Amino acid sequence: MKGFAMKKIGEVGWIEKEKPKCGPLDALVRPLALAPCTSDIHTVYEGALGEREDLILGHEAVGEIVEVGELVKDFKVGDKVLVPAITPDWSSLEAQRGYAMHSGGMLGGWKFSNIKDGVFAEYFHVNDADANLALLPEGIDPAVGTMLSDMVPTGLHGAELAEIGFGEDVLVVGIGPVGLMAVAGSALKGAARILAVGTRPNCVKVAKEYGATDIISYKDGPIEEQVMKLTNGKGVDKVILAGGGIETFKTAVKVIKPGGIVANINYLGSGDYIEIPRLDWGVGMGHIKIVGGLMPAGRMRIERLANLVLTNRLDPSKLITHKFEGFENLDKAFDLMYKKPKDLIKPVVLIK
Amino acid sequence: MKGFAMKKIGEVGWIEKEKPKCGPLDALVRPLALAPCTSDIHTVYEGALGEREDLILGHEAVGEIVEVGELVKDFKVGDKVLVPAITPDWSSLEAQRGYAMHSGGMLGGWKFSNIKDGVFAEYFHVNDADANLALLPEGIDPAVGTMLSDMVPTGLHGAELAEIGFGEDVLVVGIGPVGLMAVAGSALKGAARILAVGTRPNCVKVAKEYGATDIISYKDGPIEEQVMKLTNGKGVDKVILAGGGIETFKTAVKVIKPGGIVANINYLGSGDYIEIPRLDWGVGMGHIKIVGGLMPAGRMRIERLANLVLTNRLDPSKLITHKFEGFENLDKAFDLMYKKPKDLIKPVVLIK
Amino acid sequence: MKGFAMKKIGEVGWIEKEKPKCGPLDALVRPLALAPCTSDIHTVYEGALGEREDLILGHEAVGEIVEVGELVKDFKVGDKVLVPAITPDWSSLEAQRGYAMHSGGMLGGWKFSNIKDGVFAEYFHVNDADANLALLPEGIDPAVGTMLSDMVPTGLHGAELAEIGFGEDVLVVGIGPVGLMAVAGSALKGAARILAVGTRPNCVKVAKEYGATDIISYKDGPIEEQVMKLTNGKGVDKVILAGGGIETFKTAVKVIKPGGIVANINYLGSGDYIEIPRLDWGVGMGHIKIVGGLMPAGRMRIERLANLVLTNRLDPSKLITHKFEGFENLDKAFDLMYKKPKDLIKPVVLIK
Amino acid sequence: MKGFAMKKIGEVGWIEKEKPKCGPLDALVRPLALAPCTSDIHTVYEGALGEREDLILGHEAVGEIVEVGELVKDFKVGDKVLVPAITPDWSSLEAQRGYAMHSGGMLGGWKFSNIKDGVFAEYFHVNDADANLALLPEGIDPAVGTMLSDMVPTGLHGAELAEIGFGEDVLVVGIGPVGLMAVAGSALKGAARILAVGTRPNCVKVAKEYGATDIISYKDGPIEEQVMKLTNGKGVDKVILAGGGIETFKTAVKVIKPGGIVANINYLGSGDYIEIPRLDWGVGMGHIKIVGGLMPAGRMRIERLANLVLTNRLDPSKLITHKFEGFENLDKAFDLMYKKPKDLIKPVVLIK
Repeated sequence: MKGFAMKKIGEVGWIEKEKPKCGPLDALVRPLALAPCTSDIHTVYEGALGEREDLILGHEAVGEIVEVGELVKDFKVGDKVLVPAITPDWSSLEAQRGYAMHSGGMLGGWKFSNIKDGVFAEYFHVNDADANLALLPEGIDPAVGTMLSDMVPTGLHGAELAEIGFGEDVLVVGIGPVGLMAVAGSALKGAARILAVGTRPNCVKVAKEYGATDIISYKDGPIEEQVMKLTNGKGVDKVILAGGGIETFKTAVKVIKPGGIVANINYLGSGDYIEIPRLDWGVGMGHIKIVGGLMPAGRMRIERLANLVLTNRLDPSKLITHKFEGFENLDKAFDLMYKKPKDLIKPVVLIK
Repeated sequence: MKGFAMKKIGEVGWIEKEKPKCGPLDALVRPLALAPCTSDIHTVYEGALGEREDLILGHEAVGEIVEVGELVKDFKVGDKVLVPAITPDWSSLEAQRGYAMHSGGMLGGWKFSNIKDGVFAEYFHVNDADANLALLPEGIDPAVGTMLSDMVPTGLHGAELAEIGFGEDVLVVGIGPVGLMAVAGSALKGAARILAVGTRPNCVKVAKEYGATDIISYKDGPIEEQVMKLTNGKGVDKVILAGGGIETFKTAVKVIKPGGIVANINYLGSGDYIEIPRLDWGVGMGHIKIVGGLMPAGRMRIERLANLVLTNRLDPSKLITHKFEGFENLDKAFDLMYKKPKDLIKPVVLIK
Repeated sequence: MKGFAMKKIGEVGWIEKEKPKCGPLDALVRPLALAPCTSDIHTVYEGALGEREDLILGHEAVGEIVEVGELVKDFKVGDKVLVPAITPDWSSLEAQRGYAMHSGGMLGGWKFSNIKDGVFAEYFHVNDADANLALLPEGIDPAVGTMLSDMVPTGLHGAELAEIGFGEDVLVVGIGPVGLMAVAGSALKGAARILAVGTRPNCVKVAKEYGATDIISYKDGPIEEQVMKLTNGKGVDKVILAGGGIETFKTAVKVIKPGGIVANINYLGSGDYIEIPRLDWGVGMGHIKIVGGLMPAGRMRIERLANLVLTNRLDPSKLITHKFEGFENLDKAFDLMYKKPKDLIKPVVLIK
Repeated sequence: MKGFAMKKIGEVGWIEKEKPKCGPLDALVRPLALAPCTSDIHTVYEGALGEREDLILGHEAVGEIVEVGELVKDFKVGDKVLVPAITPDWSSLEAQRGYAMHSGGMLGGWKFSNIKDGVFAEYFHVNDADANLALLPEGIDPAVGTMLSDMVPTGLHGAELAEIGFGEDVLVVGIGPVGLMAVAGSALKGAARILAVGTRPNCVKVAKEYGATDIISYKDGPIEEQVMKLTNGKGVDKVILAGGGIETFKTAVKVIKPGGIVANINYLGSGDYIEIPRLDWGVGMGHIKIVGGLMPAGRMRIERLANLVLTNRLDPSKLITHKFEGFENLDKAFDLMYKKPKDLIKPVVLIK
């Protein structure tokens, strides 16, 4: 079969590979819609996961089941399915501890385009199909469905990690697609003011539509000064980090109140250490929680997120700025993600 | 001074009383807007709190400070303020345990028109002014401000007690003003489907505007049957009880999933026992939590809720269906609350 | 194979049955130690689960693996294992919601001697072996190991459900083996005073050893009066119900502070409704949580509980008052559980 | 009156000062027992709080009330009281947010020997007496009572911040008096293995008595290597940092499992940044929470901790290695704390 792969660090292209085998608990799926992700770009061009050879990329997909293992109970060939980017082993000790996404070890639930081939192929493999897939509901377009693989669950997890309460003020750093979902998620958890940091005009526009009340640009001076000014020196209750690098943590700790939470959902691709400013962190005793986490996955999760779309609480379609038709145009979508033109948020490829 | 009072069970009227005294931590306030509450009706006509003589009614108000105690730091004469229905003692052990609303004993933070005169007077007394009052923000109309005394904090507390997560399905029983705020609060906490039980046409209309996806009427058969049918036999994740009597708990337990939460914010005015059906409750082992609680109060809380209004996350103005001008028309508003015409949600009285 | 079974309501005896089949994810185990449980008695003599015919009883066991399915990774024939009473399906939606014990529906993780044959057989079947079994650690005696099947996890879950904080006062109703573990669990969560209700002398003695500070007997008057007197009218922070019937909830609500938690771990075998006294429950607004739940299970859980034994934090051996040798004496141990002599806490049967 | 003060950075001595004034909500207390704290040493010799002139030191005391303000309801002259090191303003917004210790701003509840004179004086001032003091219970010796000011609440808060569950493995870094209380607190929250890092023989001995299962010395190689070896490469569930400097965070993140919590209760006296190793922290997505917090205070808290002592759950007397008689010998106790002889854990001064 054909797949769009990372050939080595810095190089992508189409390759031929064996169709994956379907174990007794697994499913084989062919894609109906695919979306490249910034982390695919990191994987290829920054070598964020280390060197890989002919690794098929991609972890955002809607598909159709073409084969199921003999122990799969809830899915059958022909079912159209939502596919989460993270596919844990649900019998693992980590899942039993409440952290299925780390099944088998840190980030172990992240399999696609990491420890096995991703979804940018004619066929891809899904482990523990009953636990990891969900039926694509009528009323959700396959293109929108791809946003439920990673962008929606990751962005909304930021609002969950930040434990946002009614009327709290939140700073969201970064308004790429994940940051935009963090903005939407903050509004959907009852935040009052949402200060969002970003500059790309299309993202700024959509951030406001998702509920940002104030837009902050690094071009107008240090972020922390702008936040303190906008909040009359009070700072914010919570911070969600959805973009930038490790330096964003310094800003976060400087503008947050005692008892606040800094919630990271941003893949930190470089740097040896995240630095927490000692004095701003209350010499270690300010009750400022710093946490970051990979998106929760599983059928229940993706069904619930799909229900948010079906009930019009959340409209991820605003993320999709570019559409392509045909599997063979996947490379164009990928290239777009790499070049990141001004008006891009997310490209999607539709497959017949 | 003049006050509108419960003269005895079943009888209300205007009375003359001494202006209250202002202790060192307290404030004296004159009302700018007042709203009667269903619980005032319970107090008078059902004797829900027991017999009282010449007790001034009312606990929903926006006002202007006319006197402050010598230890009050953050407020001064002339300040316009939001006044919560519940005014705890913040130095109490209960507040230190996280339950300030029960300061000094169960429900002890509920003072207005309960253990002291209420706000339906030319002047009323607020204990611990710095901790219990909040400035009326520019941009919030005094009429809307009265909804922040009780309707908004009580309704939204239902969604908090229910610990609603993204994409959960919620049943809200009762769509009077508190129930409507529970609907809005559920949407604002990220619920997907919100099934709301009620029949009054105006309330049904507003419930949909606040986010109800399905309306259920007791006229169409047992509530539990309708809920199970609408959810394909799955039931709901959470239930908020905001109306009806103790019998609603049976319905709640019958339609909720294991691990669910039944959150009551409804003053239960009669009946000796709330009955929990043993089998539906998993013979005591179904992890179905049953809880109910008085609204949290305090300056921080009311400021946060006001910020939800200022940032347009929540529009409580839809609750106000009737407006009166002049303190002397308070009795008319009260009478309306008693008679409850079909189109009534909340009446408000504005005072120059 | 031979098994000790419920022949019908009110009748037990030895039967012959087919050896169970081992699916690809499962294990077949032969018992090394077995313990009957009060709930076996309820099942047989009160028909608590309804009519059953030739259902093999028992859910407390330590065993040796005799067969494993082809997909089992972490266990092999000959391994000695701890066997939890509850064996969930870990890929279920309920497990993903955090309630694996209710996998597939309310109490669905309870399979042994309920929806399939129990452990009182020459061989028994364990589903999802990797997720549900744990190696018997060196240093834990098989007899003590059986206490980790149900008594320890259920009793300690009471302390978890009650969310006991440092220095809180706790009432434990019932000091049978589960109640004793609730006492030990409360001490192990940092409770200060632990008031325990019971009368059997052996249980009273062991309750004190596990940390009870005050023993209350129903023979000395109403429990609530004794609790209020012992606490100078303040009541307790938390209540754990581990014995008695549905009437214990009334007592619990009468003696608990606002914000308290009533945690039930007691199988409620009869009665239509649990009754919550309306006034004592703060007319529905006292923030008194009422919850009950089946024990959490899984390999991680049982490993952690075993570690409590290995590190001498918990000594479940005090529960074992009677020991039998030989599978064939299981009926004698069962009979003892039924007759409940004064000095009995738990009998155990050891098998070569 | 006389006081033992920081005269300037690096210099201590006896000074004369005005007796503090007692406001309407306050109390004036004369000490019955006093204990110096390592943080007093930091304050003086490292200038951790910046330059101060003639600031009376000390925040650990048991005393007798000599004057109460007119609004104080629960205490009277002659009452013997436990005095927490932290004395928040309970009407503050921060207290209403659940973080009273940060009332008025980060660490704002820390007043003694920081923003006002401490307890090392003939008389000291306590704000909001009703909320901040607790009666010294009969059965608690004044010397032991001083351990309830800071050592016990701070150490136990480590176990709370770490959210220790039954059977978890915990690493405690530092076994000075606070670390020892963190060890005891971990055991009292149901930890299984407790690995404690330290070398001073007396502390090692007491750590074992409080529940440490493994002692680790930095002299035997890198801490992380020893922890990984002792846990068979699995690492620990939680880490409590109670000693060392900012470098301990690196160790903590390296040995903790995904989903773990690093809880700091150590005053971090120097260094610009705490460094979190990016890769070990799961590139920001490992769900490893990093938090640190000042001890919670208030009458309810100190009463609960006293109840742990009264019920023999916790014996802080093991911390007291040196006793002095007479206020005038306070300087000797302080000097001992500064010189830190091998066998010292805590010195206490008793006053008639």
